[in-house]
Amino acid sequence: MSATASIDFDMVVIGANGDLARRKLLPSLYLLDLDSVLPPGRIIGVTRHALSTEAYREEVAEHLRIHLPEGAFRDDVWQRFAERLVYAHVSAADRASYGPLESLLGERPDAERVFYLSTPPQLYGAISQAVREAGLITDSTRIVLEKPIGHDLASAQAINHAVANAFPNEDQIYRIDHYLGKETVQNLMALRFGNALFEPMWRAEHVDHVQITVAESIGIEGRGSYYDHAGALRDMVQNHILQLLCLVAMEPPARLDQTSIREEKIKVLRALRPIAERDVHDKTVRGQYRAGAIDGQPVKHYLDEDRVAPDSTTETFVAIKAEIDNWRWAGVPFYLRTGKRMQQRQSEIVIHFRAVPHRLFADKAGAIQDNRLVIRLQPNESIRLGMMVKVPGIGMKLRAEDLNLNLAETFKQRTPGAYERLLLDVIRGNATLFMHREEVETAWRWIEPILDAWSERGDAPRAYMAGTWGPSESIALVVRDDRAWSEQLT
Amino acid sequence: MSATASIDFDMVVIGANGDLARRKLLPSLYLLDLDSVLPPGRIIGVTRHALSTEAYREEVAEHLRIHLPEGAFRDDVWQRFAERLVYAHVSAADRASYGPLESLLGERPDAERVFYLSTPPQLYGAISQAVREAGLITDSTRIVLEKPIGHDLASAQAINHAVANAFPNEDQIYRIDHYLGKETVQNLMALRFGNALFEPMWRAEHVDHVQITVAESIGIEGRGSYYDHAGALRDMVQNHILQLLCLVAMEPPARLDQTSIREEKIKVLRALRPIAERDVHDKTVRGQYRAGAIDGQPVKHYLDEDRVAPDSTTETFVAIKAEIDNWRWAGVPFYLRTGKRMQQRQSEIVIHFRAVPHRLFADKAGAIQDNRLVIRLQPNESIRLGMMVKVPGIGMKLRAEDLNLNLAETFKQRTPGAYERLLLDVIRGNATLFMHREEVETAWRWIEPILDAWSERGDAPRAYMAGTWGPSESIALVVRDDRAWSEQLT
Repeated sequence: MSATASIDFDMVVIGANGDLARRKLLPSLYLLDLDSVLPPGRIIGVTRHALSTEAYREEVAEHLRIHLPEGAFRDDVWQRFAERLVYAHVSAADRASYGPLESLLGERPDAERVFYLSTPPQLYGAISQAVREAGLITDSTRIVLEKPIGHDLASAQAINHAVANAFPNEDQIYRIDHYLGKETVQNLMALRFGNALFEPMWRAEHVDHVQITVAESIGIEGRGSYYDHAGALRDMVQNHILQLLCLVAMEPPARLDQTSIREEKIKVLRALRPIAERDVHDKTVRGQYRAGAIDGQPVKHYLDEDRVAPDSTTETFVAIKAEIDNWRWAGVPFYLRTGKRMQQRQSEIVIHFRAVPHRLFADKAGAIQDNRLVIRLQPNESIRLGMMVKVPGIGMKLRAEDLNLNLAETFKQRTPGAYERLLLDVIRGNATLFMHREEVETAWRWIEPILDAWSERGDAPRAYMAGTWGPSESIALVVRDDRAWSEQLT
Repeated sequence: MSATASIDFDMVVIGANGDLARRKLLPSLYLLDLDSVLPPGRIIGVTRHALSTEAYREEVAEHLRIHLPEGAFRDDVWQRFAERLVYAHVSAADRASYGPLESLLGERPDAERVFYLSTPPQLYGAISQAVREAGLITDSTRIVLEKPIGHDLASAQAINHAVANAFPNEDQIYRIDHYLGKETVQNLMALRFGNALFEPMWRAEHVDHVQITVAESIGIEGRGSYYDHAGALRDMVQNHILQLLCLVAMEPPARLDQTSIREEKIKVLRALRPIAERDVHDKTVRGQYRAGAIDGQPVKHYLDEDRVAPDSTTETFVAIKAEIDNWRWAGVPFYLRTGKRMQQRQSEIVIHFRAVPHRLFADKAGAIQDNRLVIRLQPNESIRLGMMVKVPGIGMKLRAEDLNLNLAETFKQRTPGAYERLLLDVIRGNATLFMHREEVETAWRWIEPILDAWSERGDAPRAYMAGTWGPSESIALVVRDDRAWSEQLT
C-alpha cells in the first residue's frame, strides 16, 4: 500500500492498560505491522502508573501472546513492533502531568497525531481539554472516542460539546464503531454500489423487510456496574445496530467520502419513525435472561450476576420493529434485535426480498423461498444470496441454495479485523467509517423516547431462558406480520 | 418418478438405422432406462430393410457400446432394455407395407403411441399420411418431427400442412428442438420465474444487450449436400437460436404449460423487427471459412469440402443484430451469431446488464465490469452470474467474480441429456418444450427476407480463417455499438 509511504504517525493510547487496548488495539496494530501495512510511527502508551518503556514493552508482549491469533506472534515482527512502543507516565485528565507527552510529541511536530481515548467517556471532555491546553493539537491531530457516547441525548450532547470545545473542527473527532470496520460491511458497500443488479431492487417495491440481529451467547462478563445502568437498547441498538441500519437503508451517496456518507446516514436516522408511548408495546419487546444453559453449560440468572441490582429491570434483550418514513422504505419494516445469553453468537443483516408475485411451477417442484441476502458479521463473516435454482435432472424441481458472495474463502487469506481497518483509517485521516456528532445525537433522539416510554409504563422486562432466542413476545413481533426471524428459516 | 408409473408406451422409430437414431435416440432411451425413469414400453425400430428383431437388437447393442458414455453400458440394464426392442420391416411412406406395424401396435391399442420421424423432412407428409391410412392414430398418439422443417416459409408451410392433414390436432405434433431440452435452458426458467430478483431486471431499463452465440469447431462433417443448400442461417438461426431468443425474451407466461409458453414465444417472434434489404448490410454478417487450423490441426477450405459447390456462396457463419419491438426490449439489441469451424465449441446466452450509473469507488479500486448472466450450453453446461465483489483486506478493491448458479457440481450427478428429457416429455405427452407450427412459420417469416436480401444483393460471404471467431465484420457489428462479444471479455 504505497499510499501510506509518506505517512508518519504518533498514536497516543490513553488508557493503555485497559481491556480494549490489550485485547484489540495493540494486537490490531501489531497485525497491521505483520502485514507490512502500518506506516512508520510510534505508539505511545499512557497510563497513570509509573512504568519504564522497557517494562511497558514486556507487558505488551505478554498480552500479544495471549490475544493474537495462533502463529501470529513472530519474533522478527515483534522486534520491529516493540521499537514503536514508548511509554509516557501521564494522568490524561490532568494538564499538569503532560510533560512527558509534550516532549515526546514535540520531537515530531509534523507526524499524524492520534489520541486514542480508551477511557471512561466521562473523561473525554477533561482529557480533550488537557490535550488542548498542553498545546498538542496540530492540524493533523485526531482524537478517537470509543462508545458509549452518553447515556441519553443530554449526556451525549454534553460529551460532544466538551470535546468540541477542545477540538472545534468536527473532522478531527473520530467516534469509532467497530461494526463499521467489518469486512462484510465493507463488502455490502461493494455489492450495493459496484453492481447494477442490486440497487434497483433495494427499495420497498422489491424488499419485503430487513432484519438486523446481534445475538450474543456471552453474558455481561463482569461489566455489571456498567451494563445494569445501560441495557441492551443503549449498549447495542443506539450505536451498532442503528449504524448497520443506516448503511443498509441509506441512499447511494454522491461520493464515498466522509461527508457524503455521513449525510446519507443522518438522513436515515432522521427518517426513523418515532416510537411513541402508545406504540411501545406493539413495536418493542424488552427481555431479561433467567438461568439456563448454553452449549450444555449452566449459566446464571441475570439478577444473580455481579454488580447487578437485585430488583433490576434493565433489559438484556430488545427487539424493535423500526420503520423508515421515506420514499424508498415506506412500508418496509426493519426488525432489530439484540440480546445477551442467546442460543448462539450470530450477528447478521438479512435483506428479505418480496415473494415472486405469481407461482409458475407445479406444486411438486417444491416450496419456493423468497430471495434473501444475508450479511453475516459474526461468528464467521460471510455474504450469501439465497436463491432458487433447478435441481439437476429430468423434471422441474427447485431448491433454495445459498450463493457465497464473499471472496475470503476464494483468497484463503486472513480477513483483517475491524479495528485494523479503522486504526489505519485514523492514521490516514479517513473518517468515512466513523460517526459524526450529529449521527450520535440523532440516534439518541430516536432512542430516548423509547427509554422514556418504558420507564413511564413501568413494565418489567419479559423473562427469557438463557440459551434461547429471547422472549416469545419477540417471535410474536414478527409472526404478527406473517414473517419469521431468519435463524428459524435455516 | 412415480408419475410415470401408469404410462405404457410404444415408440416407433422410423429411420431406425439413421445417424440420429444411433447416436442420440437409442442411447437416450437406454440412459432413461438405466436411471429407472423410462416407463414400461416398447421401442419399435422401423426401416426398409428386412431384419430380425434379434439382429436389430445386436445392431443396437453395438451402437450403444460406441455412443454411450464410459461405463454406462451394463449387461443387466441391456438385458432389460433389449426386451423393449422390436423390429418392424416397413417402408414408412408406403401404406401397403404397414402390416407388421399394424399387428404390433394392435396388441396394445391403449399405449401411448409415438411415431418418431428420423427421416428426411420431405417424407414427413407421406409418412404421416400412411400412418393415418393404416388407422394407427389413436387419441394418445404423437408424431415427432426433427428439423429442418422446410427450407423457407413456403416449404415449411407445405410440410406442416401435409402433416396436419394426417394429424389435424396440432397438440399431437411434436417438433423437436433439442436445445430446449438442455439442463441450463431449464435452469434459466427456474432462475427467471423462481426468483423475485431477476424478473424486475429483465428488461430494457436494466439490460444493455443480449448475446447468443452457437460456435462450433466442427465443419460440415460429411453433410455437404444438405449444408451447402442450407447455410448457417437456416441450419442454426431459424430454429435453435431463435428458440433461445424466445425463451430469454418472452414475457412471464401465466402458466408453464405448452399453450402459455408457445403463445409467449410466438409473440416474441412476431415482435422481431424485420430486417429489410436496406438494413441487411448493417445488421447481418455472412461468412464462409477458409483453410486454417483448429487445436493445431489443419482444416480444409469450405469450398474444398465434399459435395460443396466449387463456387458456393453458402454462409458457414452468420451474425445478426436483432431487435425486438416491444415494450420490454425496446432499444436492447440481441446479437446472434453462429458458425462452423470457429475457434472453440461454445454456445452461450449472455444477458449483459447495464453499467452502474455512477462510479462511486476510487480509481484504485479497479475496473468495474458490468453484471452479466452467462448461460452456457456447450461444451459444459453452466450458469454464472458475473458480479463485482470486494477483495478481502484493508482498502476497497473490487474484483469481478463469476458465481455459479448451477447445481450440477453440487449434486455431482450426471446431467441428463437434452434428448432424454425431450423423449420422456413425448412419452408423457408434455409438449411445452416443442415448437408449435406457428412458431416455425413465424420464424421463417423473419428469416426469409434476410435470405432474400442476401440473394438480391448478391454479395459473397466474408472469408474467415478456420479456427477464428469469424469474419472481422462480425466483430465490427458489436464494436460499432461500443460493445464486445463475450469471449473477448473472459
